[in-house]
Amino acid sequence: MAVIRSEVENGIRVVWLDRKDALNAFNSDMMDELCEAFLNAAADPFTKVLVLTGAGRAFSAGADLKAKGGPQVEPKHGLNGLLEAIIDFPKPFVVAANGLGIGIGCTILGLADMAFAAASARFRCPFSSLGITAEAASTFTFGRLLGHQKASWFLLSSEWISASQALDAGLLMEVFSDDGFIEQVMEKAAVLAKLPLASLMQTKALMMQPLRDSMKAAIVAEGEALARLAGGAANREAINAFLEKRTADFSGL
Amino acid sequence: MAVIRSEVENGIRVVWLDRKDALNAFNSDMMDELCEAFLNAAADPFTKVLVLTGAGRAFSAGADLKAKGGPQVEPKHGLNGLLEAIIDFPKPFVVAANGLGIGIGCTILGLADMAFAAASARFRCPFSSLGITAEAASTFTFGRLLGHQKASWFLLSSEWISASQALDAGLLMEVFSDDGFIEQVMEKAAVLAKLPLASLMQTKALMMQPLRDSMKAAIVAEGEALARLAGGAANREAINAFLEKRTADFSGL
Amino acid sequence: MAVIRSEVENGIRVVWLDRKDALNAFNSDMMDELCEAFLNAAADPFTKVLVLTGAGRAFSAGADLKAKGGPQVEPKHGLNGLLEAIIDFPKPFVVAANGLGIGIGCTILGLADMAFAAASARFRCPFSSLGITAEAASTFTFGRLLGHQKASWFLLSSEWISASQALDAGLLMEVFSDDGFIEQVMEKAAVLAKLPLASLMQTKALMMQPLRDSMKAAIVAEGEALARLAGGAANREAINAFLEKRTADFSGL
Repeated sequence: MAVIRSEVENGIRVVWLDRKDALNAFNSDMMDELCEAFLNAAADPFTKVLVLTGAGRAFSAGADLKAKGGPQVEPKHGLNGLLEAIIDFPKPFVVAANGLGIGIGCTILGLADMAFAAASARFRCPFSSLGITAEAASTFTFGRLLGHQKASWFLLSSEWISASQALDAGLLMEVFSDDGFIEQVMEKAAVLAKLPLASLMQTKALMMQPLRDSMKAAIVAEGEALARLAGGAANREAINAFLEKRTADFSGL
Repeated sequence: MAVIRSEVENGIRVVWLDRKDALNAFNSDMMDELCEAFLNAAADPFTKVLVLTGAGRAFSAGADLKAKGGPQVEPKHGLNGLLEAIIDFPKPFVVAANGLGIGIGCTILGLADMAFAAASARFRCPFSSLGITAEAASTFTFGRLLGHQKASWFLLSSEWISASQALDAGLLMEVFSDDGFIEQVMEKAAVLAKLPLASLMQTKALMMQPLRDSMKAAIVAEGEALARLAGGAANREAINAFLEKRTADFSGL
Repeated sequence: MAVIRSEVENGIRVVWLDRKDALNAFNSDMMDELCEAFLNAAADPFTKVLVLTGAGRAFSAGADLKAKGGPQVEPKHGLNGLLEAIIDFPKPFVVAANGLGIGIGCTILGLADMAFAAASARFRCPFSSLGITAEAASTFTFGRLLGHQKASWFLLSSEWISASQALDAGLLMEVFSDDGFIEQVMEKAAVLAKLPLASLMQTKALMMQPLRDSMKAAIVAEGEALARLAGGAANREAINAFLEKRTADFSGL
């Protein structure tokens, strides 16, 4: 079943994460479909700008915890395939965070060329509270965007931040009112889409060239670290607490 | 004809871009003369700090479009010579943007150790709207100063930003009132000029050492990219629209 | 005599710089003891977070100028040993600047994962005014935290900045009221100390991995530069002016 919707008009391709019943959480299908959306948009001569947003009220609740461990088809691209497709995407990539962003629903902002959020959106990186670690190259991108201190707090603490805090910290370019949010993002995208694609791609290529290797190195190191921590004592306690609807107890861990 | 003026007093060398009739736009002579001003200031034992500003109301309107294609003497240093002289300049380099800064009149702020602007100044990087791409190492420096998102928007969109927006974004250190602007900059420069030159140069050298290679790599890559885009379809449409005083139409480009 | 105090409770090790009579200035003993505090905290299974603060009203007045040149025991770790121990410290490192921070009492903020200051604290990097140069990897960290322009001004000018200016510039994560300052920092530290140590350490390791080599290269280059400038004409004039209680005169230097 399709969990991504996409349409292109006037050079702007809008891609919706569309699993409204699960707050647009990422399952294996969504990673593969979103990866293909980026690959197709890169090749499509009618796409100048890609805008990623969420259907319904959430942007994305992150990795689907319920999906984990269940019977799954082997993913075609997987998380790393998706992240590489985003890092290599040669045209402007705009995130329109219409509502809450958790985990990869937040760290993906670090991969955007411009990120906007609705005023009521809020964000959380719950990695420590799950006994795991950060992903999507956020251990590289967040320090550059937020400065090392705010990035450390945000990636380590599992605390929420509001759209306005995220804006002040540098994780967002601008915050728009909830009412008319996507229209305001589309006005920004339209400014870019009226310009020549060769210039947009060339300037982006020059800006990304010194960064892409570091971003790819980060996702490899993060993936290895996640594999070490997954299933460990803290991660098991986090999962058990989640299933038993209680607060996790990491004392001694 | 001299298009640069320069005078030194109390350790501060002030350099004026001085083509008032052309809003201090850069032609080939200005690049060569400004390059020599940096080389001379580096060698001059009486210069501790260099302040670059514009004569008249503008800081600089950028590359002189009218000068392009006309009969020109082969430049002695050219744009790359100028940029290398700035990147290698071993003493504090202060930009005092007294008025509008466009193109290299804006990207040069990314090469400054400190940049100040008058409250009424505004800035624009019109590269996409000209069918070309960014220069002066801005594809490296702007991401560090403004964060990737605001830098991407500013370098890609060809939109104006005000002095106050530039300050908030991190492109400027401080904005002063138009009235008494240069005097306020000179007070800052005087603080530095009272300090021992060996310390100023040593601390700057330590700060620049990890950056200079990346800045020089950026100007090489930008120069190659510009050569690819110059004369292309979008650049031709931009020039024709400019000559015909109409809005460029990049649809399909 | 011990010039460092340390105690651990609920996973948080608080370390006090404790030379109140000297505004917690760093002498050779303090460098060695603080280095060992970091090494011990790294190895201690009961320490999840280290909070560094100052006893009394100051955070630290920096290197103890009076101690210089006097008879000294050969330091065990020295400044470089201390800095390496901090850079390699694998757990969250929080600075709680309870009062003024000068020299290394300020540049050490650039090594923190999170830095907080009391509202009345203020900071100064007096390197140029002493005829020397910056240390503690600040020539690398400050440009990343404050942006090149504010970092250049702050490291070159020897001017004071207030806690609120330091916050705006990015040198601090948050400023708390003087009244109840350390309690407010401890609330932040407690958020981290409730989380699993393996996740805290892993995420910090991923964030630091691309930075540690650059930070260590910076302290080596800074150390060599300091050795070149120490005892030079400007440094001698600064020391003489200090001893003679007059303003230093660096004209011609």
